[in-house]
Amino acid sequence: MVLDLTASSLDLTRAICDIASVSGDEKTLADAIEQALAPLDHLEVIRHGNTIVARTDLGRAQRVAIAGHIDTVPVNDNLPTRLIDVDGEAYLWGRGTVDMKAGTAVQLKLAAELTDPVVDITWMWYDNEEVEASKNGLGLLAAVRPDLFVADFAILGEPSDGEVEGGCNGTMRAVVRTSGVRAHSARAWIGENAIHRAAPILARLGEYRAREVLVEGLLYRESLSAVRISGGVAGNVIPDACEVEINYRFAPSKSAADAEAHLRSVLAGFDLEVTDSAEGARPGLDAPIAQQFVAAVGAEPRPKYGWTDVARFSALGIPAVNYGPGDPHLAHHDEERVPVAQIDAVERGLRAWLSSH
Amino acid sequence: MVLDLTASSLDLTRAICDIASVSGDEKTLADAIEQALAPLDHLEVIRHGNTIVARTDLGRAQRVAIAGHIDTVPVNDNLPTRLIDVDGEAYLWGRGTVDMKAGTAVQLKLAAELTDPVVDITWMWYDNEEVEASKNGLGLLAAVRPDLFVADFAILGEPSDGEVEGGCNGTMRAVVRTSGVRAHSARAWIGENAIHRAAPILARLGEYRAREVLVEGLLYRESLSAVRISGGVAGNVIPDACEVEINYRFAPSKSAADAEAHLRSVLAGFDLEVTDSAEGARPGLDAPIAQQFVAAVGAEPRPKYGWTDVARFSALGIPAVNYGPGDPHLAHHDEERVPVAQIDAVERGLRAWLSSH
Repeated sequence: MVLDLTASSLDLTRAICDIASVSGDEKTLADAIEQALAPLDHLEVIRHGNTIVARTDLGRAQRVAIAGHIDTVPVNDNLPTRLIDVDGEAYLWGRGTVDMKAGTAVQLKLAAELTDPVVDITWMWYDNEEVEASKNGLGLLAAVRPDLFVADFAILGEPSDGEVEGGCNGTMRAVVRTSGVRAHSARAWIGENAIHRAAPILARLGEYRAREVLVEGLLYRESLSAVRISGGVAGNVIPDACEVEINYRFAPSKSAADAEAHLRSVLAGFDLEVTDSAEGARPGLDAPIAQQFVAAVGAEPRPKYGWTDVARFSALGIPAVNYGPGDPHLAHHDEERVPVAQIDAVERGLRAWLSSH
Repeated sequence: MVLDLTASSLDLTRAICDIASVSGDEKTLADAIEQALAPLDHLEVIRHGNTIVARTDLGRAQRVAIAGHIDTVPVNDNLPTRLIDVDGEAYLWGRGTVDMKAGTAVQLKLAAELTDPVVDITWMWYDNEEVEASKNGLGLLAAVRPDLFVADFAILGEPSDGEVEGGCNGTMRAVVRTSGVRAHSARAWIGENAIHRAAPILARLGEYRAREVLVEGLLYRESLSAVRISGGVAGNVIPDACEVEINYRFAPSKSAADAEAHLRSVLAGFDLEVTDSAEGARPGLDAPIAQQFVAAVGAEPRPKYGWTDVARFSALGIPAVNYGPGDPHLAHHDEERVPVAQIDAVERGLRAWLSSH
């Protein structure tokens, strides 16, 4: 399998989409990428598992990390890709076109072509982004090669509809529990019903008005949701336990401790256990290099709601944004498709900024 | 295995408790009962599966059905029986002592001894009372031998603490459903959360004040309880469905249709499906024969809350009461135990009424 990095971004997107690379099965694509980069003298290529890094070392004043994952969620009868037309607009349809091989293809093409960028670039293409964090190729690389994670700015090619989506919300999961006393339901008054006691939990969640928080010029919308509820022993037993699992998405200006304190105030009086959390990433758009980037690509900065790997860079103190073709609402969708014009626009935007600023 | 029906009620209770007869496994005990009754000339013995009927046919003006089930819930390290003392009171401890082999033992002893009762008696001992209604031995017998269910009054030996518990509440199960729209929980506002929408269901159940309903002189306490709740798709998905299973226990003056109408008014505005119901049994204590019975046994009439097989007799127009030794709250309990004095008192009560009134 040979990748032609001189092909158009669209053709290169098709080529790498048609090499299926569901999480855990990225080796063929990683091999093809490594092989295509190997002849390029301006890049130092480093491989770690199925993660490929390609660096320039031109002695520029600033270094930018530009990253994209090469895995996808499972294919669902939506490969090979097809060129389709929807309401007069051309799309590339198929698994991975949005999340995020179009973005990765643009990066591969520019990595090959930009032999003399105005900043040094650390290109990173990694595996296992769509599965548990412990397998994430970027995370595994950072653990063994922190030296590769030195940069002044980072761009992740996650789909952002061709705009710049800054940072990301944090996420926290918790379980809220009520307890009671079992009894036969024929004599309900002898027991205490734990499910009835969950009423105020659901009421508070239902009435909760999520905040919008301005962080470095971007308005992050938070949310607090029940994602699971369970309780009950048998059809004739007053239940003595009920559990509500909640998911809180919080602005990147809040720490996990801030988020937990807020959860505990909203659900004061209830037994609450935090089971999982990941802080968000500040958009970093107040950094001069980030402002130059936004101006150069001519995109509108927006907040990113979903958690992405920008948070890894943010945690290292590196301002990081998402910038890639494709509507994030179509990621993982069986009708996943990317507008051809957005692939070209993102290529133009990145090329312009990396060539002169 | 030979049963000695001339033994004391206590010894006979021990003997039939120590023959374990968990629902579905009653054959050994049914065989022993049939064999013990066979030599008695004053009784016609009829067997149907593991249900045994023994009838007098003395041409009395009135006939009374007296019934008890011979199965128990599973044994939980609480056999063989033991005689224990709690706060100076003697108890027989072990599975089945309360529910309801003490009551059944008293009936067996009186069936053997009362060769000349003042009423004709149809004694009935049946299997599979503790499991699904479709296996209930009394119900199966009624389906094939309705002629055996002709009586002026019926007494079920279910534990009633030695008092007379009249009739029983009805029971209805229903599922109340909410729906919503799935979305990624990072963009919760795009979805509609079905679990949050269940808040008013739980609130109405929690605020519900159950009625007390006077039926033929007995005050029945109703109840309305959530017995199960479930909802949720995944930890990062706004749930599009939630189900609350409820159990309504309603006074025997209400029909199932009345009960359903009430449920629908309490939960107006929600999708509600009735999945199961059984009407209660009126206590029938206004019948002269029932009043004579209560006076003769010297017991205090009370309402029965749990559904029992008295409802089968009630549905046939036969006034029916529960009268047996043992505290119903200890039925199915691992520390199930019956006061020895109550076994004797119930034997005296039944014997007195059946011998002269």
